[in-house]
Amino acid sequence: MLKQKTSEYRGYRTAGIRLNEEMLPHLAQLYGERTKPMQAAMHAFDKAHTVMLVEEGLLKPEHGAAILKGMRTLEGEGEAATRARVGGGLHSGEQYLIRLLGEEVAGRFHLARSSGDLSAVGINWLQREKLLMVMRGVNAMRRVLLDLVPQTLDAIMPGYSFGQHAQPLTLAHLYLSWVATLERDFDRLQGCYRRINVSAAGAAIMVGSDFIVNRARTAALLGFDAVHENCADGILELNADDSLDVPSVLAVLYHSMAKWGDDLMQWTTSEYHFVDIPDRYCSTSSIMMQKRNVIGPAEIKGASAEALGCFVTSYHVLKGPTGLPITERYYALEMLWRVADNCARDLGWFCELLPALVIRRQHMLEMAWKHWATVTDLAGALVREKDLPWRTAHQIVGVMIRLCEERGLGPADVTPAILDEAAMLYHEQPAGLSQATIDAMRDPVRFIAVRTVQGGPAAPESLRQARLFGEHLARDEAVVGGMERRLADAAQALEAAVDAVIARGAAGD
Amino acid sequence: MLKQKTSEYRGYRTAGIRLNEEMLPHLAQLYGERTKPMQAAMHAFDKAHTVMLVEEGLLKPEHGAAILKGMRTLEGEGEAATRARVGGGLHSGEQYLIRLLGEEVAGRFHLARSSGDLSAVGINWLQREKLLMVMRGVNAMRRVLLDLVPQTLDAIMPGYSFGQHAQPLTLAHLYLSWVATLERDFDRLQGCYRRINVSAAGAAIMVGSDFIVNRARTAALLGFDAVHENCADGILELNADDSLDVPSVLAVLYHSMAKWGDDLMQWTTSEYHFVDIPDRYCSTSSIMMQKRNVIGPAEIKGASAEALGCFVTSYHVLKGPTGLPITERYYALEMLWRVADNCARDLGWFCELLPALVIRRQHMLEMAWKHWATVTDLAGALVREKDLPWRTAHQIVGVMIRLCEERGLGPADVTPAILDEAAMLYHEQPAGLSQATIDAMRDPVRFIAVRTVQGGPAAPESLRQARLFGEHLARDEAVVGGMERRLADAAQALEAAVDAVIARGAAGD
Amino acid sequence: MLKQKTSEYRGYRTAGIRLNEEMLPHLAQLYGERTKPMQAAMHAFDKAHTVMLVEEGLLKPEHGAAILKGMRTLEGEGEAATRARVGGGLHSGEQYLIRLLGEEVAGRFHLARSSGDLSAVGINWLQREKLLMVMRGVNAMRRVLLDLVPQTLDAIMPGYSFGQHAQPLTLAHLYLSWVATLERDFDRLQGCYRRINVSAAGAAIMVGSDFIVNRARTAALLGFDAVHENCADGILELNADDSLDVPSVLAVLYHSMAKWGDDLMQWTTSEYHFVDIPDRYCSTSSIMMQKRNVIGPAEIKGASAEALGCFVTSYHVLKGPTGLPITERYYALEMLWRVADNCARDLGWFCELLPALVIRRQHMLEMAWKHWATVTDLAGALVREKDLPWRTAHQIVGVMIRLCEERGLGPADVTPAILDEAAMLYHEQPAGLSQATIDAMRDPVRFIAVRTVQGGPAAPESLRQARLFGEHLARDEAVVGGMERRLADAAQALEAAVDAVIARGAAGD
Amino acid sequence: MLKQKTSEYRGYRTAGIRLNEEMLPHLAQLYGERTKPMQAAMHAFDKAHTVMLVEEGLLKPEHGAAILKGMRTLEGEGEAATRARVGGGLHSGEQYLIRLLGEEVAGRFHLARSSGDLSAVGINWLQREKLLMVMRGVNAMRRVLLDLVPQTLDAIMPGYSFGQHAQPLTLAHLYLSWVATLERDFDRLQGCYRRINVSAAGAAIMVGSDFIVNRARTAALLGFDAVHENCADGILELNADDSLDVPSVLAVLYHSMAKWGDDLMQWTTSEYHFVDIPDRYCSTSSIMMQKRNVIGPAEIKGASAEALGCFVTSYHVLKGPTGLPITERYYALEMLWRVADNCARDLGWFCELLPALVIRRQHMLEMAWKHWATVTDLAGALVREKDLPWRTAHQIVGVMIRLCEERGLGPADVTPAILDEAAMLYHEQPAGLSQATIDAMRDPVRFIAVRTVQGGPAAPESLRQARLFGEHLARDEAVVGGMERRLADAAQALEAAVDAVIARGAAGD
Repeated sequence: MLKQKTSEYRGYRTAGIRLNEEMLPHLAQLYGERTKPMQAAMHAFDKAHTVMLVEEGLLKPEHGAAILKGMRTLEGEGEAATRARVGGGLHSGEQYLIRLLGEEVAGRFHLARSSGDLSAVGINWLQREKLLMVMRGVNAMRRVLLDLVPQTLDAIMPGYSFGQHAQPLTLAHLYLSWVATLERDFDRLQGCYRRINVSAAGAAIMVGSDFIVNRARTAALLGFDAVHENCADGILELNADDSLDVPSVLAVLYHSMAKWGDDLMQWTTSEYHFVDIPDRYCSTSSIMMQKRNVIGPAEIKGASAEALGCFVTSYHVLKGPTGLPITERYYALEMLWRVADNCARDLGWFCELLPALVIRRQHMLEMAWKHWATVTDLAGALVREKDLPWRTAHQIVGVMIRLCEERGLGPADVTPAILDEAAMLYHEQPAGLSQATIDAMRDPVRFIAVRTVQGGPAAPESLRQARLFGEHLARDEAVVGGMERRLADAAQALEAAVDAVIARGAAGD
Repeated sequence: MLKQKTSEYRGYRTAGIRLNEEMLPHLAQLYGERTKPMQAAMHAFDKAHTVMLVEEGLLKPEHGAAILKGMRTLEGEGEAATRARVGGGLHSGEQYLIRLLGEEVAGRFHLARSSGDLSAVGINWLQREKLLMVMRGVNAMRRVLLDLVPQTLDAIMPGYSFGQHAQPLTLAHLYLSWVATLERDFDRLQGCYRRINVSAAGAAIMVGSDFIVNRARTAALLGFDAVHENCADGILELNADDSLDVPSVLAVLYHSMAKWGDDLMQWTTSEYHFVDIPDRYCSTSSIMMQKRNVIGPAEIKGASAEALGCFVTSYHVLKGPTGLPITERYYALEMLWRVADNCARDLGWFCELLPALVIRRQHMLEMAWKHWATVTDLAGALVREKDLPWRTAHQIVGVMIRLCEERGLGPADVTPAILDEAAMLYHEQPAGLSQATIDAMRDPVRFIAVRTVQGGPAAPESLRQARLFGEHLARDEAVVGGMERRLADAAQALEAAVDAVIARGAAGD
Repeated sequence: MLKQKTSEYRGYRTAGIRLNEEMLPHLAQLYGERTKPMQAAMHAFDKAHTVMLVEEGLLKPEHGAAILKGMRTLEGEGEAATRARVGGGLHSGEQYLIRLLGEEVAGRFHLARSSGDLSAVGINWLQREKLLMVMRGVNAMRRVLLDLVPQTLDAIMPGYSFGQHAQPLTLAHLYLSWVATLERDFDRLQGCYRRINVSAAGAAIMVGSDFIVNRARTAALLGFDAVHENCADGILELNADDSLDVPSVLAVLYHSMAKWGDDLMQWTTSEYHFVDIPDRYCSTSSIMMQKRNVIGPAEIKGASAEALGCFVTSYHVLKGPTGLPITERYYALEMLWRVADNCARDLGWFCELLPALVIRRQHMLEMAWKHWATVTDLAGALVREKDLPWRTAHQIVGVMIRLCEERGLGPADVTPAILDEAAMLYHEQPAGLSQATIDAMRDPVRFIAVRTVQGGPAAPESLRQARLFGEHLARDEAVVGGMERRLADAAQALEAAVDAVIARGAAGD
Repeated sequence: MLKQKTSEYRGYRTAGIRLNEEMLPHLAQLYGERTKPMQAAMHAFDKAHTVMLVEEGLLKPEHGAAILKGMRTLEGEGEAATRARVGGGLHSGEQYLIRLLGEEVAGRFHLARSSGDLSAVGINWLQREKLLMVMRGVNAMRRVLLDLVPQTLDAIMPGYSFGQHAQPLTLAHLYLSWVATLERDFDRLQGCYRRINVSAAGAAIMVGSDFIVNRARTAALLGFDAVHENCADGILELNADDSLDVPSVLAVLYHSMAKWGDDLMQWTTSEYHFVDIPDRYCSTSSIMMQKRNVIGPAEIKGASAEALGCFVTSYHVLKGPTGLPITERYYALEMLWRVADNCARDLGWFCELLPALVIRRQHMLEMAWKHWATVTDLAGALVREKDLPWRTAHQIVGVMIRLCEERGLGPADVTPAILDEAAMLYHEQPAGLSQATIDAMRDPVRFIAVRTVQGGPAAPESLRQARLFGEHLARDEAVVGGMERRLADAAQALEAAVDAVIARGAAGD
């Protein structure tokens, strides 16, 4: 008899049924490893599917009840560990139950499913879990940044472009720009969640089954917001975009995080020295005892590179005709779970690290003018006071800076005379600004204060932005709350439905 | 006098002003090449900014009128070609006008702007233009596919997983799955458009200016839906996510397109031979005169690889502290414009090619069962007629197929006897199905017809999906229509505002 | 007293020495994990460095002897496990010995080293180990392929270009082309080994030390073929090319392996069906019991995608000014170790799988002409027998194939009449070939046999290639043997030198 | 008559021969564009192949002479432009000659070739040309760097690790490390050239022809160093590694170049300010007239990102079964030609830029100690003078730096007292060093001078390295010289052979 002994049941792929040889152990082991993170999803799917089969009359209530009681037994033994021990990959539930109840009962609930929808459900379940985790992290970081705005409105520092001193800004202004980026990241993550939190359950391998299941019911019990309206579309093994969406969105988010990590590392160098980072984020050297190596932000940068690697691996691994690359995709997925976990980790680090930075305000303020970053406004004064065209003013001040450089003079050394000299050289007319104006124009505090334009760094305008971004954040926190609530409700509904089937079975219904 | 002769004005970066040497010609030339695609945006920005300056009292009406009349003169000479000829990169407008009107007038309208917001406006302008073009292409392809559904409902073919015959489906079913993917692509593109169609105008280099411009007004005249609320965020040179969003979304779309290209190429091989592709998409060989090489879909696959390369290049090139990589980004942008253009090209090719395919229905139908793709339903019959557990039925049929293979029998050779033999081997009981049932279960037409489950390939269910997807398409076509209308309205508003300023200047206001 | 209790020594980076806080535990843990694979190298380096210090008079013999005896004690406890338990990352040896011998003795042997050269030695040690493993695998696969040549000389099959039937070839011919690729891979790997097997030991952090160590001696004891002649160059943390060389070479190799995996998967499809793959490499489906999913080659393809991801991650993570990205690189290195291990695994699979393939010769032979793959030689006959220009012959046969297609005729149906008809249509002269010639030209066996040109698939020429490639293989096997011998000799020399120092210490030298 | 009118000949792929429709014009145009860079190779191949055919008796001397005279006519009209005008892609020679001489003569010389070996020859021809160009550039940069060594031996500056001040080095020392990297790049390029400069000519599409050509002769006339011993291996359309080798090697080289670009940009910032870069490499801003934006090195960094994109695109585009991706590869090749040209451009820029840098020696020297970079040697002094274990000395100095930091003291403020205080805190014993020793240990000039260890930055040791690297450079310059000579010789031999055939044809041989 080819049928296996119940107590030693090893699944449907054994030598002597369809195939002549057992699978190579290392291939089987790879498969087992990969399906581990999906066991929680498989457990819920096993239960929801069984409930639905009973409700639709595709499984007798007594069978359903026995199966679901078996699932509860499994839970009692510790669901994750037991499923991993039992083996069978995505089919660990069936494998456990056949050993427990025999094929006659437990062989009945895989009806109208396939590994295709199992893995699609498992992957989307994990993808939404990771997305939620990252969305929470993004919102937490937005909150931390917004909380830092009031206390950094006067932390004036040079802004850079091309790596050169451009114009002064404030740390608050910069933090607000980070918040703006994170708002877009949230938008991307949310769009992704909306596209991903869709159920393939019942799509079987791509055309569904001739046992007419209720896909909407299973989807609802699993917390999915919708059902793939086309079964071929639902099978992730056929469709690639759903497997690229999360990697791409995480990669984009991680790029910004790495950039901020680069900023932090730059600010802690001896050369910039805008902030001190707490020693707990630092290592030192086994020979250079003066070293205070900034490790935390470097980890973020490293993880960002893996996020790019994950997108590339995903893109490449999925290339090929529809339905060809299936096993292959797990090389990308393992990377994806790691990238998502690192992303949540690193958002958490920012939340802890940013408030702990020691800001060296005095040095930052000096740097905000000592390399000419405020000098644009000297040209502005020529426009305002002397009605010069902007371009004329710009060129005159450009000449003046060259003269200063040639003579070893810095911004503090500018006089009406040298400005006039430059103006004469440029168009044979003096500039005519007073020393008082020149000095005022050099002051970075003034420079910031007058930039009240929409989006500018003046304190009231920064606070306006912070309020607006705070409203957006509240809205997005509510979005995440709603998602979490819907998942919790579905989990509860599933348990209630399981109870009902078990009760119905007990009642001999 | 350092001031340049008006008629020979060469821009603000000449030797003797700020710097001592002229820029290396090849560096200057690279810059000129890169800014070419942005000249249309620069032209609109120059006009909108001038209008706004006059409206806000930052530029005298007579100056504004002269400048805007000069812009009209420029248009008369052919805007793109003239700007390219004049040089000056993003500042070609100023360069043209200073030659025309002198610095005294034309040197006035660059007030409160910088290359930072110029390039941000130019890039976002181009990005939205490309996105719109691609969204139109995506919708056109959805339309073509939906139109093909009714005539391919009975084009039954094998579906594949792991490259093996899985179960039958129809071409209509597959096309509907493509539509489902394209719906998500549209969603991604639209989200991207929403995040991208935002104005940095007036953000200058990252902190705005002390000349308090009306950023909302400029944005509206340029067709942007919103203003970057934080000036540092607006400067694309500081922010990376806005430069990764479009590349990532296009790469994901292109991946699916390449997969369909792979499908088409596979279907045209001698081995599959499901379709014939028109000769106009094919080349032949200089020695192997039998060859009919399928070129069109291969181009799509090639372009998809560049889309991945573009994302990687963008991600890598933007790495570094805030404000460092600026010049560098153009290496990615040039790739991006090319990828977007190819994407629209290739969506167009699908629209032309798909209806022109000659479908070899008879061959496809035969293939849909000759390699056992319908045999799952034989196990289903055992469940339905004999109340066997699914797993038991599955294993029995598995044994039966092995026996058939060993004896050189195919699906058409299955008899009750061999099925019984397999059942006996499995659990020492015969299966008991009739030849009629066995034959019925083998029929792919029946196989498809009974799959009326939500998402299944049965004709009525496919038509339901087509109707639903048609509604989504109509909605998304309206979205694109709305975007186009808003842009057209803004363009009209800009011309009207230019007219008004010119009139006001003429009136000596 | 800030000095730690010997028995509880936790390394040099503790709160209260240079820094005020302990490192965050999760940061410390990440570091510990990453240095695990390098412990074997660290152990050898610790010993070789100590030996050299004693030899150079930089460490007293009694101290050296105590330290090296301590190392032997460590070995007795199980080197890898003990080092992992003790902690301290790259400095686990010092950490263990200070606990064992106290700082007074064990604090002496880190002289003139730094984490910089430690990690450079550790990484290069691992890189060479992985390269050697892969070179062995490449040679084993070459051997397997060459062994298969004699038995596949007559396994005639269609060759493809653009996915279309091009011309017949043999499996032997194709396998020889794989060998040719693997020869180049070996060349790349060997070049890489030559560049990588270089010692940074004693380069400290980038400038060496003022304690003048003998870098050549340490390098020799560690089996390195050379010393980095410039200390800054030796520190991998500063130099990027040494960290990209191995990933790039492995990625290129993996690309070919994936391509062969794709070939194998294609050949096993129902459509091509050139080979049967043993069931142990296959899985089946939980519902589609007919499935024989080919898993083994799919794993290779998946791993190849990670090899690309690894190169991209390495390239990206190392971007930045000299000496900046250090911690970050470990995200790439962890991927690299995995990719290298998978590569050796997959080369091994090829070695086992290829001889186990069941080749369906008859089917392959038929396919080699049934889709016109031999028809080029019909044109050749026109050239040879009728002195037609090639291009004329080519066009005539092209017309003939079109006529055949239009009339539903295949290669077996070609007659002198239809060829003449085509020739008349082309240039108003008949072709004049006999049926015998036509039939002969169609025969793939003849087609192969006449291709005796250098590089052709005729059996004698294939055997010539096999002999030549066999000579190359023997040469390269000797290369690997030489590398292994040099490493074994160095390991032996190191133990002898350790013995000598211990003896000298005992002698009170 | 289907045969085309000679004067209007449009090639072998016209409607009515094999296929029913003309190719879509845009597809044909893409093909034309892509083959443009290969026309020089095609021209040589056309001539060499014709010569060989005559020599082997496969083409009559009078035909050969007519064809080769036709080629000379073509040359007279301007080879590149004429071939581009004539069209026909790789077959432009045939197309031109058929128009000139008629199919009866010019239709004869494509015998035993195919687009397969044409494109393989064309691609390898271009690859070797680009490799040679880059090898020349690499050697030129090595020369420039070695020339700079003597004058930068005393340009002492801080070395960095983790972005922190590590230990002093010299610009010469750093330049020597760049040379060491470039040596490995040369080794990679040379290995690549050796693998690439191999001829597929005569391999036809993958099995050669039944016209037994002399492949070695054609290869020699084309300057190839070897012949692909297996025809399938020779066809690049089948083999992927030859198409990944050059992209990978260029990407690795470009990574280092970008890193040096990053270094240069960092050194020019206001914060580091180690060098001044000539103004001709800089731009300024349209509003921030103080800006001196460093453009040149930024271009290098941008081009490096495209080099990564090129490798990724190449890797991805070539994925698929043997012989499938052919058209697709051109998307990668176009990128490759651009990357190679940029690489030569950027090596040239380094050669011009590096000698033009203004080095701010005094500032660099101060920075080399002011942030404690020399303090390791203070611990060294404790080891040397007080026989302290290294670890003990390291910890004491670590404590001392913490004390200094807490008290606002810098390296210049260290006294015996504070060092003793630290030592007491550490192990309750004073350190006992004199102020003189402390001061000496701080001096970066001494720090460099004592590092005479192999690979160290002391002047004599740097000069030793420079001599050694100079010898390597001379060797590699000779390598390039040899390559160039062999190519020149082959070109001459080809012309001589053409002359001989023409003469033979004239002689009526």
